[in-house]
Amino acid sequence: MSNSDDERFMKEAIDLARKGMHNNSGGPFGAIVVMNGEIVGRGFNRVTSTIDPTAHAEIVAIRDACHFLNRGDLSGCTLYTSCEPCPMCLGAIYWSRPDRVVYACTQNDAASVGFDDEFIYREIGQSPEDRKILMENKLRKEGYDMMKEWLEKEDRIPY
Amino acid sequence: MSNSDDERFMKEAIDLARKGMHNNSGGPFGAIVVMNGEIVGRGFNRVTSTIDPTAHAEIVAIRDACHFLNRGDLSGCTLYTSCEPCPMCLGAIYWSRPDRVVYACTQNDAASVGFDDEFIYREIGQSPEDRKILMENKLRKEGYDMMKEWLEKEDRIPY
Repeated sequence: MSNSDDERFMKEAIDLARKGMHNNSGGPFGAIVVMNGEIVGRGFNRVTSTIDPTAHAEIVAIRDACHFLNRGDLSGCTLYTSCEPCPMCLGAIYWSRPDRVVYACTQNDAASVGFDDEFIYREIGQSPEDRKILMENKLRKEGYDMMKEWLEKEDRIPY
Repeated sequence: MSNSDDERFMKEAIDLARKGMHNNSGGPFGAIVVMNGEIVGRGFNRVTSTIDPTAHAEIVAIRDACHFLNRGDLSGCTLYTSCEPCPMCLGAIYWSRPDRVVYACTQNDAASVGFDDEFIYREIGQSPEDRKILMENKLRKEGYDMMKEWLEKEDRIPY
């Protein structure tokens, strides 16, 4: 991917962010997924308009690209996002495995306009019992007995 | 919440996981959201059936609860999940802010049946330039100029 292609696609992601924000869809965030020089997925933040705290631009764009490509794996793709991904979106990136991520604003830029995810980054690095949201372990054996049925399921689809 | 209530709700989450897996919805994961002793959201993994790598049980349950409660904030709620959340789901938990998370299987239990997210935990702790998925910063100024429009937008809805 040439630098001018990268800039062209990033401008598209930034335009999408601006459009979503001014349409009152949600915060100022946009993302696109590109494969072989073609846009295969688009997303802008829809958190407030759809009352969905998971509807970040990257999540929406990844879902859109997987739907369009009819596969859950984005290898061969680049994700362009107007802002450095939060931990939730980073997780989604690792599950969907694009080859590359290009971002414009940094985590600090986002924090300076009111979107601070540093706390979440820190919390994810803690073990469950040390996190600020109380996390408790119960019925582990019952859970694990259920989970082992997965390995016995002959028609399971691994992912 | 009494211990017997916790066990009852966790059994519901495990049953949901089992049902989803045997219906070929996706992997063996289920989650419910409870507020004031009532189930307000449900989810099981739908990754393979909906071709959506973000459709983890917790994400589905959080979206379902927010839709039902008509708010993006789950304070006052407990999330019961059949397995310790992955980084993506943890991110979603921090954005939606339930008071408490109860999980049955651990990260290691999940890894032993083929669902290993340790790599993702490690990657999130790295700075962008050190991650295995290539992450590059481009057009930061253009992105930040757009983002600052958020602060000037008088009808913005913070979240």
